Amino acid sequence: MVNYPNGKFSNRSKVINYARRGMSLEEDLNLTNKYYLETDKAVIYKKPTPVTIVDVDYKSRSTAKIVEAYFQTPSTTDYNGIYKGLYLDFEAKETNSKTALVLAMIHPHQLEHMQRVVKHQGISFLIVRFSCYDETYLVFSTDLFEFISSTKRKSIPHSWFIEKGILIPYNFQIKVDYLSVIDSYILGGKI
Amino acid sequence: MVNYPNGKFSNRSKVINYARRGMSLEEDLNLTNKYYLETDKAVIYKKPTPVTIVDVDYKSRSTAKIVEAYFQTPSTTDYNGIYKGLYLDFEAKETNSKTALVLAMIHPHQLEHMQRVVKHQGISFLIVRFSCYDETYLVFSTDLFEFISSTKRKSIPHSWFIEKGILIPYNFQIKVDYLSVIDSYILGGKI
Repeated sequence: MVNYPNGKFSNRSKVINYARRGMSLEEDLNLTNKYYLETDKAVIYKKPTPVTIVDVDYKSRSTAKIVEAYFQTPSTTDYNGIYKGLYLDFEAKETNSKTALVLAMIHPHQLEHMQRVVKHQGISFLIVRFSCYDETYLVFSTDLFEFISSTKRKSIPHSWFIEKGILIPYNFQIKVDYLSVIDSYILGGKI
Repeated sequence: MVNYPNGKFSNRSKVINYARRGMSLEEDLNLTNKYYLETDKAVIYKKPTPVTIVDVDYKSRSTAKIVEAYFQTPSTTDYNGIYKGLYLDFEAKETNSKTALVLAMIHPHQLEHMQRVVKHQGISFLIVRFSCYDETYLVFSTDLFEFISSTKRKSIPHSWFIEKGILIPYNFQIKVDYLSVIDSYILGGKI
């Protein structure tokens, strides 16, 4: 705890100590997917945010303006696409917690979707960033399902990610180079 | 032309002669994909309409209300997913024209995306409905690219669909059974 000049206490300095590069996981993934697309490595997109459009104003001739819409609960994961002829499908989650990822962050519909993808021979995984450690993990869905079915815990501890996850390398051009992880699994004959 | 009691002329009867089942191609595809999902045949979704959200009203505690948003030009096709381990990707278009599909209905970005999918060994196609004939065709993207590169026409004539497209069967449970067409291509060793 830091005693601030104005007399108020704050524990913000703890967070600052683990300051990230300033980019969110979503921004990093957008740049990564753009790089993959431009270098013709893979075709992977984030799906648009699902919204229910209730009212549109067509007054303006050039652009229709949506004036009433609501966010929907996603029924699938956020990202999918194709890589080396394989169907890739994943969800990305970022947490500020130092100890665990709250399972409620993944909707039941999304878990069902991930199970379906695995069943239909797609490559399904989760990308999880622990912002305070600046660590981004790739976790295959089958490992996630195993965790969920083996426990009643409502969160996945950070230690589990260290054990079961694969740390995704970072470089200037490819912010979250998750395809390098997929590649090592293809080479290892695991996919 | 029909001479109506009120003395006005109308050629609407022509349209009525070819009346459709009353469902749009999008509705039919939604039902079809739902059926495929529920019968565990494939996992294919329509992507949400891409919108740029400008302003959200958080006044209400339960639901955030989007009060200003705009439609974006799609950069990919509308549908994608997985079938028998294959990456499937397609766009659906419906036309009221009896003679042709206007090419401007497919955005240049979508054509680029389709070319990328083909290059990365995905199955890329177009589903086109001529509402007045109640005909729904599947056209593989490679055939579409061939057409575009061989002509300067701004539309694809209906006769071309008869020649190059595959008529998609309809039944009560599966409104647009496009996977049966994909199946015949897999069996024929063409995929």
